[in-house]
Amino acid sequence: MQRFIDLAECGRETIVELLRLASRLEAVPQPRALEGKVLGLLFLNPSLRTLASFQAGMARLGGSAFVISPGQGSWKLELRPNVVMDGDAAEHIREAIPVLASYSDVLGVRVFAEGKNLEHDLAEPFFSAVRDTCPVPLVNMESAIAHPCQALADWKTLDDLDVPQGGKFVLSFANHPKPLPLAVPASAVQMAAMRGMQVTVLRPDGYALPDPIMNAAHEAAKASGGSVRETDDRREALEGAHVVYAKSWGSPRCYGDPEAERAMRADFGTTWRVGRDWFDGADASCRFMHCLPVRRGVVVEDEVLDGERSVVVRQARNRMFAQMAVLHRLLRGE
Amino acid sequence: MQRFIDLAECGRETIVELLRLASRLEAVPQPRALEGKVLGLLFLNPSLRTLASFQAGMARLGGSAFVISPGQGSWKLELRPNVVMDGDAAEHIREAIPVLASYSDVLGVRVFAEGKNLEHDLAEPFFSAVRDTCPVPLVNMESAIAHPCQALADWKTLDDLDVPQGGKFVLSFANHPKPLPLAVPASAVQMAAMRGMQVTVLRPDGYALPDPIMNAAHEAAKASGGSVRETDDRREALEGAHVVYAKSWGSPRCYGDPEAERAMRADFGTTWRVGRDWFDGADASCRFMHCLPVRRGVVVEDEVLDGERSVVVRQARNRMFAQMAVLHRLLRGE
Amino acid sequence: MQRFIDLAECGRETIVELLRLASRLEAVPQPRALEGKVLGLLFLNPSLRTLASFQAGMARLGGSAFVISPGQGSWKLELRPNVVMDGDAAEHIREAIPVLASYSDVLGVRVFAEGKNLEHDLAEPFFSAVRDTCPVPLVNMESAIAHPCQALADWKTLDDLDVPQGGKFVLSFANHPKPLPLAVPASAVQMAAMRGMQVTVLRPDGYALPDPIMNAAHEAAKASGGSVRETDDRREALEGAHVVYAKSWGSPRCYGDPEAERAMRADFGTTWRVGRDWFDGADASCRFMHCLPVRRGVVVEDEVLDGERSVVVRQARNRMFAQMAVLHRLLRGE
Repeated sequence: MQRFIDLAECGRETIVELLRLASRLEAVPQPRALEGKVLGLLFLNPSLRTLASFQAGMARLGGSAFVISPGQGSWKLELRPNVVMDGDAAEHIREAIPVLASYSDVLGVRVFAEGKNLEHDLAEPFFSAVRDTCPVPLVNMESAIAHPCQALADWKTLDDLDVPQGGKFVLSFANHPKPLPLAVPASAVQMAAMRGMQVTVLRPDGYALPDPIMNAAHEAAKASGGSVRETDDRREALEGAHVVYAKSWGSPRCYGDPEAERAMRADFGTTWRVGRDWFDGADASCRFMHCLPVRRGVVVEDEVLDGERSVVVRQARNRMFAQMAVLHRLLRGE
Repeated sequence: MQRFIDLAECGRETIVELLRLASRLEAVPQPRALEGKVLGLLFLNPSLRTLASFQAGMARLGGSAFVISPGQGSWKLELRPNVVMDGDAAEHIREAIPVLASYSDVLGVRVFAEGKNLEHDLAEPFFSAVRDTCPVPLVNMESAIAHPCQALADWKTLDDLDVPQGGKFVLSFANHPKPLPLAVPASAVQMAAMRGMQVTVLRPDGYALPDPIMNAAHEAAKASGGSVRETDDRREALEGAHVVYAKSWGSPRCYGDPEAERAMRADFGTTWRVGRDWFDGADASCRFMHCLPVRRGVVVEDEVLDGERSVVVRQARNRMFAQMAVLHRLLRGE
Repeated sequence: MQRFIDLAECGRETIVELLRLASRLEAVPQPRALEGKVLGLLFLNPSLRTLASFQAGMARLGGSAFVISPGQGSWKLELRPNVVMDGDAAEHIREAIPVLASYSDVLGVRVFAEGKNLEHDLAEPFFSAVRDTCPVPLVNMESAIAHPCQALADWKTLDDLDVPQGGKFVLSFANHPKPLPLAVPASAVQMAAMRGMQVTVLRPDGYALPDPIMNAAHEAAKASGGSVRETDDRREALEGAHVVYAKSWGSPRCYGDPEAERAMRADFGTTWRVGRDWFDGADASCRFMHCLPVRRGVVVEDEVLDGERSVVVRQARNRMFAQMAVLHRLLRGE
């Protein structure tokens, strides 16, 4: 494995090995496995779990990490190609990546979608520029449409909790004050499809996930024996569900137009806030998942988030073990 | 010891053991004592000493640390319970604490007083929420009304300098452009009282420390053989003093009302700036203490701060050793 | 060696030893050389390479580092002496330095020129205050007129690439949206002169480097057998050049007056942007150097920066090895 930037690129077999390694590292610490190794972390967007779990995970393997946050103690970075840099940004990503890589044995990079043009973001121009200029193993810490570390941690969480491989996985849109990126819903659907689950995307009119995302999920489902479908009928979607994975995202229909988005959400009220009654027809063991951060009282009611179905802290904790497995594999090649 | 959140909770015997351990770690490095251990540090307020000394101290014991500063590279955190989170804050402390704890062997948290309502702050609602949701050993890196790491370092400083156990400890209010929290004065008085000192709080009318703080100090003094009293008479207060501990705090009388506070301070001039003449009637060995940061020319004259009585850098340095003892004790349980 | 704050103070012999050590550390890792040691890093200005390379380098030697950035999670620092601190800054550098030093085995400090008064900046009042209050080994991570870590890395880069000791080194002014500090041009000229090179400073009228900088370079050249001269004739300057080192700096003639500076640059157009044709009369092996960050399309054309002559990433990478040598030498004294 030379890099970890997308579940699909990784392939099911490698993922299963990574999950096994993650569980082994959880059970039996290896505090010197990556001694003397350095992980560079470049954050072009905010973070809590990623920032903490990569540093903690690297430390638990005996290695070290440094963090660079452009605009916060470091120069603002220019991401666009062929620009005359006479504005705010003092440095271009084309220099920053090879330079940071030159200090690092492995580099993690977070660069969200720009959120202006859907086609543009779906093509991942920024992360592709990172990938193409990075001479060391690269980890995607969330790009425009992929968050593979989250997906790997979620998969581990499903395994930990014995959620059936062929169980029913419902990714549900949820309300939010702002239009959010597509990376987590895209990766969650991809993950559940690769795991062989019966995936339902529950979302209002106007929030269908873009074709490239759904097509990739369909392909993954075909290979794994799973399935993927979409609906706006909550009752039907949740019938027998083993997992409700809540997440908000911006409407692809009015991508980059926050005003139009606000208008679309004006009537949502609490319709797209996950409440206890959502689980009435679900499987008795049905879990509530969310990648965090989550807005209480907007995305989900407190009693669900604080209740027994909620496994959000376990998901977050598994970020660390999943990423330790990725780092271990990238740096020791086993 | 399961946590370090307040000197009183800790108890005198444990404190004496921690001080002994701190001196041992100062004299004889233990660079592998906490190998493989991770300290999570959550700062909801600015810091210099705490930020540096916890990281340096953990490193000197062979462990690692990571830092999370909401609003600066990490999501803004909501602290209030039962809020519909449709504002600025993307994450609630109720998720943030267990998540960060899940990456950490021990968690340090700094969350200052809100500064609006005195009763509210005295009840420590924010730090209590942290404490109640933290499943790993917790260290108070300054809460609304307690700064036990500073107090422990100050105690060590008094011991290092052979300041008599029953000596005269004067906590003096000092001027400042802004109303500051009560954590340091509360912890300094508590510490000196627990150490058995004759404590005098010197402050202007309107700046008496709130009853719960003074009551706790009186109780501690009763147990240790010390005493605690208040006065606004500087000459009498400083007569024979072994320590002048300067610190500014906001008036409890107009708590949360900066305008009123400004009016109260309008006539202070340099009356509450510690100058050389303050020490005229003090003991010949009298020390000047301050927790830092300190505003030169406002809180204290340069010639005092730069003079022989000043032990502020030693206090700061002892932060590291005191905290190393706390971390050592929490993680190795000896 | 007790500190590393200026190439001239260091002396040629020590520099040659540091370069040898840097190459040794590049070739053969010493992952436990600085075990248990702590490097404090104080940044009063932004950074990418320095921030990353000091942390990564310290980690590769088995030590640890912490970072303090006043105004970003830490208190704003006052740098001026004898000030009544009733403004924004909560802490004075006179306390901050000894306190941070008390947690550190070695301290690195970055404090740029104030950029208002040339005489003032040339006297290095801020870094001198740091130096005079720092009780542990000190590393200059860029002060008003010196960036010795960059210069040491550049020297190593020249050696790595077999650029002749007596070769022609052209420091060329380049355009930029803002007036920048003199530290890098001053240190580059000093470095090349100490290395024995034939140094030409190519710059427009009004951009001659200040006398103290040129005088120091002349003195260094005299000792090493090199030479130093200035010109505004590009063709003559570049004739037979082995190195074009591009860098922008503010005009000493209108120092601290951005309006006047803007007027001086109004007609520059692309005259002071390094293009491919600059190398027409240069030596066939001529290298393009820049300390980074660099503004593409302003300082240099993309095709030069991305072309074969460009060694900017190697310069940046050598920052790490150069600094590892400095830290190793300061902490192990060999």
